[in-house]
Amino acid sequence: MARVIVDVLPKAEILDPQGQAVARAMGRLGVAGVADVRQGKHFVLEVDDEVPDAELERIAGTLLANPVMEEWVVRRVSDAEATAADVPGTHA
Amino acid sequence: MARVIVDVLPKAEILDPQGQAVARAMGRLGVAGVADVRQGKHFVLEVDDEVPDAELERIAGTLLANPVMEEWVVRRVSDAEATAADVPGTHA
Repeated sequence: MARVIVDVLPKAEILDPQGQAVARAMGRLGVAGVADVRQGKHFVLEVDDEVPDAELERIAGTLLANPVMEEWVVRRVSDAEATAADVPGTHA
Repeated sequence: MARVIVDVLPKAEILDPQGQAVARAMGRLGVAGVADVRQGKHFVLEVDDEVPDAELERIAGTLLANPVMEEWVVRRVSDAEATAADVPGTHA
């Protein structure tokens, strides 16, 4: 099993109302220093080792992202790399 | 300006209906080799260089993630690192 991460973001030229709402909320709440926020989707897939990169790209571009409005990056991660799935939420 | 990425995922012990829906849809569509999908949020922040890591953690844990149900990872990215925001969606 390999772990594959797909990060999806609205294209730069596409309005991002979710991100803008977060950025405005930060301003209202007194958070300083954040100039811009863009919000997208973060997928973590557990994939058989035999699945080739081309198939992962096809899955991302047809099932996880909308190519008309979104951009995406596919990356395989090693077990050593920390992901949100691995790190206990002890930050709070 | 620094670019900061915050990836948010439902905690491992929390049901992830979005990810499960994606995984089931893949099965129906004949995509083989994907054993599990978890879906979360991907934030890209443009932040002043003076903002310390502790403040970024506070922002992530109070405004971007719900610490009761979600885990998150905060990372500063160099300009050299590819993010979905930089890569044209020419995969399709």
